[in-house]
Amino acid sequence: MSGEGDQFMPKTILEYNTVSLDEKNSALVIVDQTQLPGRIEMLSLTEVEDIWEAIYLLKVRGAPAIGVAAAIGVYVAVKNAEVSDMQVFYEKFRKAKDYLATSRPTAVNLFWALDRMDSVVKEHMDSEIDEVKELLRLEAVNIRSEDIEVCRRIGENALTLVKPGDGLLTHCNAGQLATVKYGTATAPMYLGQEKGYGFHIYVDETRPLLQGARLTAFELQEAGLDVTLICDNMSGAVMKKGLIDAVFVGCDRVAANGDTANKIGTSVVAAVARHYGVPFYVCAPTSTIDISLSGGDKIPIEERPPEEITEMWYEKRMAPKGVKVYNPCFDVTDHELITGIVTEYGVVQAPYEVSIKNLVQRPDPQGLPPQNPLHK
Amino acid sequence: MSGEGDQFMPKTILEYNTVSLDEKNSALVIVDQTQLPGRIEMLSLTEVEDIWEAIYLLKVRGAPAIGVAAAIGVYVAVKNAEVSDMQVFYEKFRKAKDYLATSRPTAVNLFWALDRMDSVVKEHMDSEIDEVKELLRLEAVNIRSEDIEVCRRIGENALTLVKPGDGLLTHCNAGQLATVKYGTATAPMYLGQEKGYGFHIYVDETRPLLQGARLTAFELQEAGLDVTLICDNMSGAVMKKGLIDAVFVGCDRVAANGDTANKIGTSVVAAVARHYGVPFYVCAPTSTIDISLSGGDKIPIEERPPEEITEMWYEKRMAPKGVKVYNPCFDVTDHELITGIVTEYGVVQAPYEVSIKNLVQRPDPQGLPPQNPLHK
Repeated sequence: MSGEGDQFMPKTILEYNTVSLDEKNSALVIVDQTQLPGRIEMLSLTEVEDIWEAIYLLKVRGAPAIGVAAAIGVYVAVKNAEVSDMQVFYEKFRKAKDYLATSRPTAVNLFWALDRMDSVVKEHMDSEIDEVKELLRLEAVNIRSEDIEVCRRIGENALTLVKPGDGLLTHCNAGQLATVKYGTATAPMYLGQEKGYGFHIYVDETRPLLQGARLTAFELQEAGLDVTLICDNMSGAVMKKGLIDAVFVGCDRVAANGDTANKIGTSVVAAVARHYGVPFYVCAPTSTIDISLSGGDKIPIEERPPEEITEMWYEKRMAPKGVKVYNPCFDVTDHELITGIVTEYGVVQAPYEVSIKNLVQRPDPQGLPPQNPLHK
Repeated sequence: MSGEGDQFMPKTILEYNTVSLDEKNSALVIVDQTQLPGRIEMLSLTEVEDIWEAIYLLKVRGAPAIGVAAAIGVYVAVKNAEVSDMQVFYEKFRKAKDYLATSRPTAVNLFWALDRMDSVVKEHMDSEIDEVKELLRLEAVNIRSEDIEVCRRIGENALTLVKPGDGLLTHCNAGQLATVKYGTATAPMYLGQEKGYGFHIYVDETRPLLQGARLTAFELQEAGLDVTLICDNMSGAVMKKGLIDAVFVGCDRVAANGDTANKIGTSVVAAVARHYGVPFYVCAPTSTIDISLSGGDKIPIEERPPEEITEMWYEKRMAPKGVKVYNPCFDVTDHELITGIVTEYGVVQAPYEVSIKNLVQRPDPQGLPPQNPLHK
């Protein structure tokens, strides 16, 4: 598979593409992340129901990767549609798009990518259906290629915030496995490695589904970085010992005021970092910024089944039967706990209402991806 | 078994004594906490090696319960010593005592209880050996009875800090299973239940060994309280939603300046509580206060095996092979994050150097247990 715009040559798991379109342009190909780190299994998905389920069951996960998977997925879902009427084709497209949009509620990249695909069709209602199909394919491939470039630029910008030898903490997986390449929160780690920065990386295991232990520790270790796994509740201990110079996390949606939804526990790391005076950075492609929401209280938070906490992964049930469980998949980090938001365009800081507005409304002088269409 | 000084009649698991001396005065009897909540198994231990292992392997755990188990354990270890010379008896006693003192490093109650037992022998070196053995039995039984009374008083004092209907969060297990009865952090919950306070209790699962999920959620649910289990990284989410009015945790050692060592993750909850303006209370029998240490940096922190994080409880390994792991069993909560320390004598607040000194040096007007002998 291709390595667009990319001189970075990772080892083992990183050689697999997290999410891509197969060479026959007929299937969404993903690494099944629920099988990691025990087994590397590639899934080739052609049915929209299977693609929906892969997103819902976190076989593909991570806000940027979900966006790319949805874009490729909606293309795959309609590419074989044998219809001659454009309006009928559009109805089929909309049905697939609206269905995929129900797979996860929090990451805005899902809706952003599907809306970009939607615009392609809407802007070419007078074209031939085959031509529109090809434009959809190109848009999906572009969304994917742009993700690599965006992540690389986030890494370059984040790298200006740290120095060689630093201890870095991350939570969940905002790594290569959450994107197409580089990751967002891990991008400075990989780019720093190329420059011999010698970072010491601490990874929260990230309950309940252990994306930190299973995915982040795995991919960083495979790439040869110095990585230490801790439980989510050990961030205080490592920060008190002075082991952490900066925290980098990803995000699923950033509101206009800088409030950030990310994997459950992110706001906890942020509060601990504040107490110990450790800078806390959110790595956010601008596709993750949703200025239509004034604050984090407006971001819908997905709740997931109690069994993820009480039973999953266990040989035996580790909680009493019948106990009530609260299992939100995300939390919102208050903007005042965020030292900076690292985007492909640069690092923005408080006051976020102003800096984020300036960021998303600026012209695009660097030939970077088009602005998030939600930025109306 | 007896229910000294106790009108509280709990159900099921709470009817078992966490730790006691058997009726023949020959064995330490404990609930094997590593088997909960799946199985209630009572262990009857007569060999000092088995008692050491029970403490080391967390079959009996929780600072107060460890103290009681060590006191009963050192009595059981020497009660059958067939020696006629007091000096020889004392050597045997010291050997057993010093050995048990190596079972866990952080909870000061272990050393406090063993030192109380030591004083009994040292103060009766001219007595008959059989008489000293009986005095040791009485001291161990007293330490146990006092624990019940101390916990009840902590509960009464803590109950003054909350109101009916409050949402309370606790971390790890500072419950009945960590003591003889009532628990420390759970004492206000049980006493509040008797008064119909209708608390809503949130319990951190407490990785890596899940004492919150396995023990606290279990014992509170068995007692009929309203309990909701969350992962450790969800404290931010529940506090942001306004669900938590106060946090109560136990402790393993409190330094002279109020810095508190408790189960790993406690300092994380404290930092989050500070951000959201939620009061954070440490429930501490005075036996847990160690004014010989000026601050928390002097408290030895036990580190435990990496497999507790990477393998334990799992059907399959959930972290990459060979990954480095940091697994401290405790962390230190900075005193400035602690709203108050709830003892059997009352609630002390900042400045802790003064309030703790006054507390441990005050005369004992209420006929409560003797002062911690470490308070020299």
